[in-house]
Amino acid sequence: MQQSGTPFPSCPCADRLPLRRMNPGGAGAAGDTPALTASSRMSSSLLFYLCSLLCVALGVASVACVSLWSSRWRGGFAWDGSGLQFNWHPVLMVTGLLVLYGYGAVVYRVPLTWGQNKLPWKLLHAALMLLSLILSILGLCAVFDFHNAQKIANLYSLHSWIGITAVALFALQWAVGFAGFLLPCSPVAFRKLLKPVHVWLGGSILLLSVAACISGINEKLFFVLKGTPNGTQPYSSLPAEAVLGNSLGALIVAFGLVVLKILANVNWQRPDSRPGDTAYTVRGAGKNIQK
Amino acid sequence: MQQSGTPFPSCPCADRLPLRRMNPGGAGAAGDTPALTASSRMSSSLLFYLCSLLCVALGVASVACVSLWSSRWRGGFAWDGSGLQFNWHPVLMVTGLLVLYGYGAVVYRVPLTWGQNKLPWKLLHAALMLLSLILSILGLCAVFDFHNAQKIANLYSLHSWIGITAVALFALQWAVGFAGFLLPCSPVAFRKLLKPVHVWLGGSILLLSVAACISGINEKLFFVLKGTPNGTQPYSSLPAEAVLGNSLGALIVAFGLVVLKILANVNWQRPDSRPGDTAYTVRGAGKNIQK
Repeated sequence: MQQSGTPFPSCPCADRLPLRRMNPGGAGAAGDTPALTASSRMSSSLLFYLCSLLCVALGVASVACVSLWSSRWRGGFAWDGSGLQFNWHPVLMVTGLLVLYGYGAVVYRVPLTWGQNKLPWKLLHAALMLLSLILSILGLCAVFDFHNAQKIANLYSLHSWIGITAVALFALQWAVGFAGFLLPCSPVAFRKLLKPVHVWLGGSILLLSVAACISGINEKLFFVLKGTPNGTQPYSSLPAEAVLGNSLGALIVAFGLVVLKILANVNWQRPDSRPGDTAYTVRGAGKNIQK
Repeated sequence: MQQSGTPFPSCPCADRLPLRRMNPGGAGAAGDTPALTASSRMSSSLLFYLCSLLCVALGVASVACVSLWSSRWRGGFAWDGSGLQFNWHPVLMVTGLLVLYGYGAVVYRVPLTWGQNKLPWKLLHAALMLLSLILSILGLCAVFDFHNAQKIANLYSLHSWIGITAVALFALQWAVGFAGFLLPCSPVAFRKLLKPVHVWLGGSILLLSVAACISGINEKLFFVLKGTPNGTQPYSSLPAEAVLGNSLGALIVAFGLVVLKILANVNWQRPDSRPGDTAYTVRGAGKNIQK
């Protein structure tokens, strides 16, 4: 696969680095000097890591912000059917369905891993997504338990319709992804058919997750900031809690946009598989063993 | 640009049809029979038109649904500072910032236009986007006027923060897009730099628009379906209006996902410009004149 003009002729992942696919004619084509190719490749990788750093920072800030909101302004946490149990809901959904989900999607794109066996990265991707799914389901349990204890109906609001759809699609996506991409008996042809659907549905679930988070935060702020006679300020006067909630929403939107930007960039998509990459591989002395 | 094996050797847009870029080796490469290429190309085009048809249907259904909600359940329209003026807000935002915006984005991808002069399609894209922007600004005027007349604060909710950001970015995008892609004095190098930013920001504005619509519908349904003693049913009992509002939200999310799917498919992106396509062109006897 190595072509003349590659700046890293001895690097096993030289044909898997970003920008290799930016020029369909291949690096080193007419007018494309090796120095320029190396420079472009490095700047694309650098941009990826900058975007990833921004993604990590926005995710951490979102989790910190929602935790602060629930613990400082909403009284903390419990699992007793009270409002303190509800407080787990935003924290678990933002942490699971949004931030860990986004990290799990982005980790599969890290260019430094492209020259390596794909399996450990598939397993890390699947593990992060499973953890994200478990936290999301716990977040749903928190709100269902709270509603049931308080005799509040479940699943009537648009927020809940969007949120439950996101979690249901996520569970389906994880199960089909596990069966299609990790089970050794899954046919290669099925994997090839499944891959674009998996990638598209992954982005769609993130969009649903952002919409559910924004509508949920907006709804909660209207519920709790009513401006009662005992001194609670109304949402419309933008007290500190409202600014915190709105800022959390802004962080969540920014996080979603950065993750979707990373996922949409074709130059940051992991290159198509080598023959041994589509299933379990054991790295032996220069051979891949398909299980 | 025509290669042996192309099924439409006399078609000027043969090298601009979908799937031409699916195989970096070019159609007609080893193992790629002309019949298969024609079949793949046709199925990709067919899929594009099916997705576009779905996009049109979902957009029409969304506008019909929001118009029905405002006119039938919310009492109709006026421009007098009353609640009837507010009713213009959801109709104009869904029609302008979501549906026309989505149509304006998708129209630029129609494969049948790829062999034609790009300018008329740029103008149509810009005109649809301008109409969309005008309707969005009118939608904002409706809600600001209503708030001012009713002594309600403006721009405090998360919904309003997301919505106003979407419209501000949209106005910026339109102005920079007009200057960069339609003004003859705009340098080609600037257009090339601007294009990926324009495409990414376009998708981001749509995501903001979907999030603003969902949070706005959710908020409105909680506001109006309070379950008062005079017989109004609460949102939690899912009366007909709640089902209509929630269904509108589902249609909006589906519309956003279909549009983003169309925009994300690299095989449906208009091929890079011919030399004369980057500025105004007048089609003469086989020559492009750059103005």
